[in-house]
Amino acid sequence: MSKIKVAIIGCGSIANASHIPSYLANPNAEIKYFCDIIKEKADKAVLDYSCGEAIEDYRIALNDPEIEAVSVCTPNDGHAAISINCLRAGKNVLCEKPAARTYAEALEMQKVQHETGRVLNIGVVNRFNTGVNLIKKLITNGELGEVYHVYVSFRSQRSIPGLGGAFTTKSIAGGGALIDWGVHFLDIVMYCLGDPLPMTVSGQTYSKLGLDIPDYSYINMWAGPPNYSGTYDVDDFVTALIRTEGPTISLNGAWAQNIGSEEMYIDLLGSKAGIRLQYGKGFKVYGAKDGVLLETTPTYKSDEMFQDEIDSFLECIRTGEKLASHIDTVILSSRIIQGIYDSSELNREIVYESAMEDAK
Amino acid sequence: MSKIKVAIIGCGSIANASHIPSYLANPNAEIKYFCDIIKEKADKAVLDYSCGEAIEDYRIALNDPEIEAVSVCTPNDGHAAISINCLRAGKNVLCEKPAARTYAEALEMQKVQHETGRVLNIGVVNRFNTGVNLIKKLITNGELGEVYHVYVSFRSQRSIPGLGGAFTTKSIAGGGALIDWGVHFLDIVMYCLGDPLPMTVSGQTYSKLGLDIPDYSYINMWAGPPNYSGTYDVDDFVTALIRTEGPTISLNGAWAQNIGSEEMYIDLLGSKAGIRLQYGKGFKVYGAKDGVLLETTPTYKSDEMFQDEIDSFLECIRTGEKLASHIDTVILSSRIIQGIYDSSELNREIVYESAMEDAK
Amino acid sequence: MSKIKVAIIGCGSIANASHIPSYLANPNAEIKYFCDIIKEKADKAVLDYSCGEAIEDYRIALNDPEIEAVSVCTPNDGHAAISINCLRAGKNVLCEKPAARTYAEALEMQKVQHETGRVLNIGVVNRFNTGVNLIKKLITNGELGEVYHVYVSFRSQRSIPGLGGAFTTKSIAGGGALIDWGVHFLDIVMYCLGDPLPMTVSGQTYSKLGLDIPDYSYINMWAGPPNYSGTYDVDDFVTALIRTEGPTISLNGAWAQNIGSEEMYIDLLGSKAGIRLQYGKGFKVYGAKDGVLLETTPTYKSDEMFQDEIDSFLECIRTGEKLASHIDTVILSSRIIQGIYDSSELNREIVYESAMEDAK
Amino acid sequence: MSKIKVAIIGCGSIANASHIPSYLANPNAEIKYFCDIIKEKADKAVLDYSCGEAIEDYRIALNDPEIEAVSVCTPNDGHAAISINCLRAGKNVLCEKPAARTYAEALEMQKVQHETGRVLNIGVVNRFNTGVNLIKKLITNGELGEVYHVYVSFRSQRSIPGLGGAFTTKSIAGGGALIDWGVHFLDIVMYCLGDPLPMTVSGQTYSKLGLDIPDYSYINMWAGPPNYSGTYDVDDFVTALIRTEGPTISLNGAWAQNIGSEEMYIDLLGSKAGIRLQYGKGFKVYGAKDGVLLETTPTYKSDEMFQDEIDSFLECIRTGEKLASHIDTVILSSRIIQGIYDSSELNREIVYESAMEDAK
Repeated sequence: MSKIKVAIIGCGSIANASHIPSYLANPNAEIKYFCDIIKEKADKAVLDYSCGEAIEDYRIALNDPEIEAVSVCTPNDGHAAISINCLRAGKNVLCEKPAARTYAEALEMQKVQHETGRVLNIGVVNRFNTGVNLIKKLITNGELGEVYHVYVSFRSQRSIPGLGGAFTTKSIAGGGALIDWGVHFLDIVMYCLGDPLPMTVSGQTYSKLGLDIPDYSYINMWAGPPNYSGTYDVDDFVTALIRTEGPTISLNGAWAQNIGSEEMYIDLLGSKAGIRLQYGKGFKVYGAKDGVLLETTPTYKSDEMFQDEIDSFLECIRTGEKLASHIDTVILSSRIIQGIYDSSELNREIVYESAMEDAK
Repeated sequence: MSKIKVAIIGCGSIANASHIPSYLANPNAEIKYFCDIIKEKADKAVLDYSCGEAIEDYRIALNDPEIEAVSVCTPNDGHAAISINCLRAGKNVLCEKPAARTYAEALEMQKVQHETGRVLNIGVVNRFNTGVNLIKKLITNGELGEVYHVYVSFRSQRSIPGLGGAFTTKSIAGGGALIDWGVHFLDIVMYCLGDPLPMTVSGQTYSKLGLDIPDYSYINMWAGPPNYSGTYDVDDFVTALIRTEGPTISLNGAWAQNIGSEEMYIDLLGSKAGIRLQYGKGFKVYGAKDGVLLETTPTYKSDEMFQDEIDSFLECIRTGEKLASHIDTVILSSRIIQGIYDSSELNREIVYESAMEDAK
Repeated sequence: MSKIKVAIIGCGSIANASHIPSYLANPNAEIKYFCDIIKEKADKAVLDYSCGEAIEDYRIALNDPEIEAVSVCTPNDGHAAISINCLRAGKNVLCEKPAARTYAEALEMQKVQHETGRVLNIGVVNRFNTGVNLIKKLITNGELGEVYHVYVSFRSQRSIPGLGGAFTTKSIAGGGALIDWGVHFLDIVMYCLGDPLPMTVSGQTYSKLGLDIPDYSYINMWAGPPNYSGTYDVDDFVTALIRTEGPTISLNGAWAQNIGSEEMYIDLLGSKAGIRLQYGKGFKVYGAKDGVLLETTPTYKSDEMFQDEIDSFLECIRTGEKLASHIDTVILSSRIIQGIYDSSELNREIVYESAMEDAK
Repeated sequence: MSKIKVAIIGCGSIANASHIPSYLANPNAEIKYFCDIIKEKADKAVLDYSCGEAIEDYRIALNDPEIEAVSVCTPNDGHAAISINCLRAGKNVLCEKPAARTYAEALEMQKVQHETGRVLNIGVVNRFNTGVNLIKKLITNGELGEVYHVYVSFRSQRSIPGLGGAFTTKSIAGGGALIDWGVHFLDIVMYCLGDPLPMTVSGQTYSKLGLDIPDYSYINMWAGPPNYSGTYDVDDFVTALIRTEGPTISLNGAWAQNIGSEEMYIDLLGSKAGIRLQYGKGFKVYGAKDGVLLETTPTYKSDEMFQDEIDSFLECIRTGEKLASHIDTVILSSRIIQGIYDSSELNREIVYESAMEDAK
């Protein structure tokens, strides 16, 4: 079987940290193009990985019939347009999270996926996380009883990424802490719960601590340093309450806050047992039996989730299998995130009157 | 000056733990009646404290012209009726929290207070807490900048009080974790923020872990042991999101949950600094200056808040001063709590169309 | 501007861990020689860093007119002789701490520096530490009020370095825990306090736990393993009390002791506030206001102090700026250390009758 | 055998907390007089303990031939004069610590004890502490090898007692933290080491945090509240270094300091093993064997040391046994404390030229 030819579109942090090494480690793939509108980044990738060709315009890859698979690793404003064009050109697409800046864009992506029949997976990589899958299995097997509420906390004291750059410019990123971090947390929740439809969403977002860029105190900055003359018009704090056909979900998230604790976890509250998952780490199960309260800490061998994501993407191009990270599932968290942003602007709860025929 | 004659109505845990010792320690008060519908409790109090007269019917105290002050320490279903009758009989009333089972009852209490002009304070004792008052001062002085969100957590793994008894019977208590614990936390928030009016309330309550009374596993039980043939129809978990004219407030509360951590705190998120208050303990202030993040832990001498509550009540009977724990302030948290219960039943957000003329 | 050519004299742990990588990271420097009397170490450096020439005799570098800067990274017995020869040859010198084995040697180094006018900095790298500089600023700004006492603790259960080797042989190292560790702690204190002159020194040193080399129990050994046939005649414990024109300083230090706690900190006791600095970590500020005791923990971005030390050294060769790590400041802690050793031998306090004209 | 008749002179905190209950619990003793120059205190004692007679002038007890034993529990300025008068009147005396305000006073007490042959014990109650005695035995048995240094820490953030009162007035108390707390710590050290003679003493005391009495922030105050118009002229911080014929001893002590940790311990550093004793609590032994470091925590049944002190005092009146708390042993720590105060005034070390014939 010949190798699948891949184009990497966007050669920034996430491409270099996850996509590229995973393709290189897969024997059935070969990177043909490294594309970036900042040509130096593409050139550097060719040099670093000793393979592929550096291009500035992704349409070169799009028009190359050899290319079967595309990883979209650009800032969020490129996600929908590039993915759609690639699908229409017959390519299979793995697009980084969030699917898009808005729910409308995500819906359009889904529509084109349905029309073209090509693969469109989103980089909700935690669906390939060993611990998350163990939790999903525990819930499915009824070990928690009825899960009635989920509390999601993704709060950090100082973690605004690339202050003044693409991450903090709404027209590029679509939003801040909620769309960048919240999407991961909400997607884990949706996945573990079996993707229940949202019924109401009430939320509020705040843009406070990054407003005065030169005055922002921080210790480290992902995708930094700050651009003092850049833009900051996204949320650094979000709170929300969501009713689904299943449990309610409440969340607090902060890219930055004046509270010192780092609290990154998901609490799944069940009638028989509950789980606290520390994001990116392990989890504990809490139950009770015969008057005894039980706390159980499972230890397990973790697969490399980014590798699994890439391997599964390449595999499903051949097999046609629909992955858990398919646009059809991710559309739900996109809808919720949009709901929170809308609710915040309206200062009232969003009610989803009808079922989501559009989304399923 | 002659001593103020006091009647204690309801001789259960809160009366014995707080009200009675505080009256005894005040040189200007004298307990004349201990009243309880379970006569043995009143008799025991007379014996224990070597003073007063034991009565079963509080109307004896009500009809005694010598009585100036009344502490209402009954289960919640007695709060409104007894307080109202006492006010109408010309007595000054300190009624334990929550003011009443419902907002309607609380409004009625407020109305009668306004008509009679007698004192009606509610036992929101944290308004007399040293740390809480330090926080209020920091906020008022602008040290936190704009407080934009408050997160409230009152979550315990196993703390349902008197399972099967008055605490867990809705017709008596009015509710569970929210009305019993939440009232304290919400009241601290309201107090520190200067009592901002609520605009929207969305919430959901759950009654799960206490349902099967004999199967409920626990380590200790306040007001226990369980009554296996009793009633359990109140909330053991609550989640809510509240918009006020000031900050938003989100909360999660649990009398019982299958998560092992005890998380009892209030986070006040400000644009300049933030505070985490550990309920009943101390607090930390988080700020930043010139690129340095600062965590400050104040240590201070705590006054005895229950004593201060009683002393202030007795004092204001003489002076006419309106205390921070007056029904006019407490009515706000009562409205919010009602809103959460209503929202939970309707599965949608409650919007307060008009201002609260009724309440202010 | 052409690059500054550098010679590294002594290619042991400190050269490889700090000096060499910092020179390589500075765009204005180029390492021309790696010198070590154990030729293999110099050869290895050439190989590891792909630059420079390996030499055994440092006089080759000394006689090369291209060399402007020298890092002296030999055992302590080489510090004075090599630094002096390099200064006389017109080189600028960064000599590792301690300046020398004895105060007399250090004075000689200072004298030659004054004669030649070349740079002579000592590797008291904490003067480039972000936290230490924050503390110095707080003291200078009067935030601590009058600093009246400083307590210095550098005590470890088992940390004798290279037992039986150069570190534990007095004729080579000049001393043990005091000269090797104490020099860092005392230098931080001197720096933060503005280098006050010592008035009296009383101290006692002990050589106990390393005496029986094969019997010495330990978990890890820096610069190990032990040389069972080597020498151990240096101090593993020291206690001292120093009066300065400013505060008193007391210290306890242990390379090894039969107490299990690792206590590495400096307490600065001020009349308005105090600071505990955990060596190599952060610090806490303790104050009080209006009856409230305040504990503040600053978090800050730490610059790489070794890099800063090298960068500043290279910079000051060009600019002539006198750094805080100049021999003229370090001479003070050298005098104190000598005083402690002398006091220990005499079993009585050393009194500095006259001012330190020699040293300033 | 008839009961020993006892007079309590001084009815303050230490009398009520320790002496009186211990006499009452001893079947061979009977309290005949409670004496206090504040008559109300003596009256209250008669009432509280339902025995004895209240007197204002201790000479009544002194002239009563029935009285055999006297407890001197006055402020420090009464210790020497009262003890001496009682000894001369033929009474046996247990005098609270410190023996006296100055070494000269203590020497005078010792002299009169020698002349009269009556018992004179000092309230160095830790000599009756179970843990302290276990440590003494370990040292005597050679388990620590050579004890070469002892570090003593008695440092608290805010513990000035009775600010503005007898404790903080030098003419009454003789000193502050050193004489009030240090005497206990030094006495434990002296006792465990077998009372070695001091050779040199260098120390410095500071009077800083209590100077501005109304501005002193604190949480609790022993023997409080503060007297705002009182005197504060004693040490709240002390540092010292002592050479003895045995080990060196260094100490830092604070009644108040701007450091938040409470560090109350004694480290005994031995060549074979070491001990950290937490004052008033337990101790740990640290050793090593065959490359393994050992930390041993003994748990033991603690006798009531105050009871043991009183019982032993009463017993030795009959038997003539010389107790470990005899003035002849306590004189040593009195000499050291005096040396520290003298050294602090002179800003130089005190050297004891000749042996202490006077003291032994």
